Amino acid sequence: MQTKLNFASDYMEGAHPQILQRLLETNLEKTAGYGFDKYSEAAREKIRKACEAPEAEIFFLVGGTQTNAAVIDALLRSYQGVIAAGTGHISTHESGAVEHSGHKVLTLPGENGKLSAEAVYACLDTYARDENRDHTVMPGMVYISQPTEYGTLYSLAELEALSSVCRKAGIPLYLDGARLASALACPENDASLPDLARLCDAFYIGGTKCGALFGEAVVFPRKNTVPHFFTIVKQHGALLAKGRIAGIQFDTLFTDGLYLKCGQNAIDKAARIRKALRDKGYELALDAPTNQIFPLLTAAQLAALSERVEMSFWENRPDGKTVVRIATSWATTDEDVDRLIEVL
Amino acid sequence: MQTKLNFASDYMEGAHPQILQRLLETNLEKTAGYGFDKYSEAAREKIRKACEAPEAEIFFLVGGTQTNAAVIDALLRSYQGVIAAGTGHISTHESGAVEHSGHKVLTLPGENGKLSAEAVYACLDTYARDENRDHTVMPGMVYISQPTEYGTLYSLAELEALSSVCRKAGIPLYLDGARLASALACPENDASLPDLARLCDAFYIGGTKCGALFGEAVVFPRKNTVPHFFTIVKQHGALLAKGRIAGIQFDTLFTDGLYLKCGQNAIDKAARIRKALRDKGYELALDAPTNQIFPLLTAAQLAALSERVEMSFWENRPDGKTVVRIATSWATTDEDVDRLIEVL
Amino acid sequence: MQTKLNFASDYMEGAHPQILQRLLETNLEKTAGYGFDKYSEAAREKIRKACEAPEAEIFFLVGGTQTNAAVIDALLRSYQGVIAAGTGHISTHESGAVEHSGHKVLTLPGENGKLSAEAVYACLDTYARDENRDHTVMPGMVYISQPTEYGTLYSLAELEALSSVCRKAGIPLYLDGARLASALACPENDASLPDLARLCDAFYIGGTKCGALFGEAVVFPRKNTVPHFFTIVKQHGALLAKGRIAGIQFDTLFTDGLYLKCGQNAIDKAARIRKALRDKGYELALDAPTNQIFPLLTAAQLAALSERVEMSFWENRPDGKTVVRIATSWATTDEDVDRLIEVL
Amino acid sequence: MQTKLNFASDYMEGAHPQILQRLLETNLEKTAGYGFDKYSEAAREKIRKACEAPEAEIFFLVGGTQTNAAVIDALLRSYQGVIAAGTGHISTHESGAVEHSGHKVLTLPGENGKLSAEAVYACLDTYARDENRDHTVMPGMVYISQPTEYGTLYSLAELEALSSVCRKAGIPLYLDGARLASALACPENDASLPDLARLCDAFYIGGTKCGALFGEAVVFPRKNTVPHFFTIVKQHGALLAKGRIAGIQFDTLFTDGLYLKCGQNAIDKAARIRKALRDKGYELALDAPTNQIFPLLTAAQLAALSERVEMSFWENRPDGKTVVRIATSWATTDEDVDRLIEVL
Repeated sequence: MQTKLNFASDYMEGAHPQILQRLLETNLEKTAGYGFDKYSEAAREKIRKACEAPEAEIFFLVGGTQTNAAVIDALLRSYQGVIAAGTGHISTHESGAVEHSGHKVLTLPGENGKLSAEAVYACLDTYARDENRDHTVMPGMVYISQPTEYGTLYSLAELEALSSVCRKAGIPLYLDGARLASALACPENDASLPDLARLCDAFYIGGTKCGALFGEAVVFPRKNTVPHFFTIVKQHGALLAKGRIAGIQFDTLFTDGLYLKCGQNAIDKAARIRKALRDKGYELALDAPTNQIFPLLTAAQLAALSERVEMSFWENRPDGKTVVRIATSWATTDEDVDRLIEVL
Repeated sequence: MQTKLNFASDYMEGAHPQILQRLLETNLEKTAGYGFDKYSEAAREKIRKACEAPEAEIFFLVGGTQTNAAVIDALLRSYQGVIAAGTGHISTHESGAVEHSGHKVLTLPGENGKLSAEAVYACLDTYARDENRDHTVMPGMVYISQPTEYGTLYSLAELEALSSVCRKAGIPLYLDGARLASALACPENDASLPDLARLCDAFYIGGTKCGALFGEAVVFPRKNTVPHFFTIVKQHGALLAKGRIAGIQFDTLFTDGLYLKCGQNAIDKAARIRKALRDKGYELALDAPTNQIFPLLTAAQLAALSERVEMSFWENRPDGKTVVRIATSWATTDEDVDRLIEVL
Repeated sequence: MQTKLNFASDYMEGAHPQILQRLLETNLEKTAGYGFDKYSEAAREKIRKACEAPEAEIFFLVGGTQTNAAVIDALLRSYQGVIAAGTGHISTHESGAVEHSGHKVLTLPGENGKLSAEAVYACLDTYARDENRDHTVMPGMVYISQPTEYGTLYSLAELEALSSVCRKAGIPLYLDGARLASALACPENDASLPDLARLCDAFYIGGTKCGALFGEAVVFPRKNTVPHFFTIVKQHGALLAKGRIAGIQFDTLFTDGLYLKCGQNAIDKAARIRKALRDKGYELALDAPTNQIFPLLTAAQLAALSERVEMSFWENRPDGKTVVRIATSWATTDEDVDRLIEVL
Repeated sequence: MQTKLNFASDYMEGAHPQILQRLLETNLEKTAGYGFDKYSEAAREKIRKACEAPEAEIFFLVGGTQTNAAVIDALLRSYQGVIAAGTGHISTHESGAVEHSGHKVLTLPGENGKLSAEAVYACLDTYARDENRDHTVMPGMVYISQPTEYGTLYSLAELEALSSVCRKAGIPLYLDGARLASALACPENDASLPDLARLCDAFYIGGTKCGALFGEAVVFPRKNTVPHFFTIVKQHGALLAKGRIAGIQFDTLFTDGLYLKCGQNAIDKAARIRKALRDKGYELALDAPTNQIFPLLTAAQLAALSERVEMSFWENRPDGKTVVRIATSWATTDEDVDRLIEVL
């Protein structure tokens, strides 16, 4: 019996072998905990350079939900909420972690996962003009993800516009980079790490979905953006005792361009699959250039493919078709893709 | 130049080499996330057997603070608080993570880190007799740690008494086993894993301080103790995407008695150090049999030792003496101990 | 100079004179606090009778936002959210009080302020079928208001349908009756207090907007719906020390049908105004039969009316028209209405 | 049958008759809600004058617990806690309302209900010197009550010392004045309202226990101490719709010295009772000069007195004696006191 091909998600394997190798080499060294070790410091320094943000404050957390919850709680005052697309990860798949810290997610309609500067401006303007605004939740920051949950990308111009709206309103812009390697490696992308550091007040560089066992690097490009963030992280239960396990992973990812290479592999493999799907007449639900592909399948296509390939269910359409997700990662091989193309 | 000896804590190294080996061997396998993989299931099954609790529900979280916060929030109703010793980890070194979820820590004086059944009974009885109790925080559970933050152990009889008080009051008993391997391997210990499973409503088997890179295994010995704990974990930002990384570690720790071996090494090394300290006339601040040793040093002793050995500061005494902590771990070698004894 | 007519809201006056009279008569009596006085008990008994719910547990709180926050927090588990119309008071004008207690408001589109049983069913069904539901917020109750924030009414059949959907799903239905007197007195209404007690798991009978200085009577028609609600109220800062001040007000409101009379006056006056508006060719934004009237004004009409009458701004329409709100109350007089009609 | 005398608390009656009179006179006026009415503004202006704090920002809330919870949440950042005496109201009888907002109450031992500047300094200093402080809750403000829950008073010198410690540490000092009228009217008191305004960053002037139906006036002596406090109040469910009902009460209390007169009556009556107790050989548990008296009764005395007088139980002593509380108020009459003295 043949195993099914597995394209269900981009966090099904362990870590890039170079990371495991570094963990092995350093395993018996004794270091301070909580990120006060030389590997974490080296990783921070490399990320500062990659971001061209020499004063950036950088923290390594374990996962995306905890990172979002801690950063958002840190950036907001108790009476403020966070603007996000209705499809944003914090709006949907984090079990109310933001609300658990007392903050409302103020959802706006997005387009293919993206928030527009216009929509954010309109929301802030409506609030500012509302005579009853003191009875409502004040929008206190903006959350976006790059790439989005739908695999789409903000262009540099779009990010500039969002950043400009936020700065004029005096509220921070925060970018969730759970799959940032895929964005950075994407030919369509024109927003570099230094761009993000320049335009955002906080963002995180995702490790879990980009080659690490786990780990997300929170970057505050400017000093003192959040005093006492360390304690906030601890209070949120998000402080890793053996901080170096995250530090070593990011040190490795930011050595010799490994982070980008991880993204590049995912992008290359996704491009092959996307082309094959189009060549074979499959319909795509939306035009997303990164490592997530969203075929829109008829019932027959779905039945046939599901037998051979693990994919993620995405949504049912009223016309009976189904959107599924195929995801590639740093670990997807050409053989995996060949076999997938065969069964398409 | 010689490096200082380092006995500052029990989480300074990576993981037991067998764990890294297993992570390497399984690295490229594709598995489901969030603990729905075969390694996590195998680990759960082994822990159920070790606990003689065939129906136990088991979850793998990343660290102690998040585990305590999630379990306590799960076991309490919104208006309840958790009874703990004033020296309990949740009372002191978790940055208010329990309060962040809305619950008060109801601290009672302990003795050498331990809560007595009598003190808990008196607290519950005072509450029950208080005519104004509806204006106060209802004690809704009891938190203890084994070994305690002071390295001391609850005897089986003490645990039986605590459990009995809790059951009569209808509130759960929760045990923080961050260093449980040290307790289990300790000759003075008479409370086994099956005893804990029988007497507690929830407890966790610590990985971070007992041989793993990270990870704590929450055990609910009885089914349905906490419906929807998975979602609570997610809401607390404590759900690991690549759940198998924790699962593989616990699967390894519970294969061929590795967990106990990790504890045994820490205990053996601590026993050698404790004996050497006594032989050389050092005073100990308290009589703790596990892997933490608390010498009470004069200023001169402190100055001399600090030059050669990294230890943890514990507390200043009014008489000018200082309590420090020396900790051993699964990774402490006989050579480490020899060198320490030389400089004592 | 003539004062402007004031129809801005239904809580601009003090209390019905009979209430003040009773406060005067009882002023120097000494009673127990926190609702344990004979007036509060008498009020509870009268409400039980009016609701035909002899076992109902009843609590008097001060205002609507605190009542909603306390009841919702009491009915939900930490990981659950509350379903509400996007226009629901808790979704918009309570400054995030529900989120402050850690719960997400799960908004559904409503129609003229109303949630349909179909929409609730679809939401619950989508959740139940969602393979990723454990990563989302579980819908744990339904919030509706009667009349709604748009002055519209749920019919008895609609309430039966909502209740049926909730009961099948095993989640409570909660009704916000801030303006319940207006609903009960409305000729279009066919849902009585006993109906609400039968169909809802919790609701509140509004006092603030229906003749009292302040006060909302929370009714749990069935015993033990929420154990320790008293403490939850206290924890929410919503427990009134001199509980009898609320108790006396509700005792008076539920004596000789005063509560209904208060609603009747608001309804009668609103009916006269509505008729006059229609007669004079004004357009109404929606067809709402209770004490709130929503004229849709041209810029010219708005300018003219605003000079003579205080109204509440409601919303701007893309076509340049403006929706305003005219509200009547127990205190609105025929002279007030005559003068308003003159200036229309 | 004779009714028992009732000295159980100081909030057993309604309001001072002048307050009810004013509520009657203004009852049918239409005013804006939420404190934006002329009576609330007049009350604020009178309080500013009484406090010699022309820029003070003043808000009227309903009760003490909600006031403490809202002010403390407003003054703290998410990772901070509030220092209070272990006997402080927020530490004991508010059902965890402070923790409900996510903040730990950092209790220090007090003496007769009072926190010393030395104890606060030591706590702040210990925190500042603690190498692990980033793993603990940061002390972010100090809470005291005047008079304390034990009826004792801070002297001006003690308040100066506390204020000085707080200002050096850069944290706010907040004073709970639930019974402030009793302090201000007490011959032993040397701290005036202007002193409080000068020394505190926030305090509240209690109405509920000092002549009002309900209501507490929060005073921030300096502008912009808490931006958006209005919204925080709303979010806490503590915003009164008919704000003028509180405003009128405080306007009346601060007209012609009524607030002080209310306190004076309570103090005078308490002095008579205290003298009679001493004359008749009763022991007092502590020397408290305000409107609360704490006799330490033998079992026989308790049994005898309890039959004739309603008092509050305070605490059992190990020697079998019992502390009870006798409270006087603005409404206690000489006849009440005569009858009490008779039965002593």
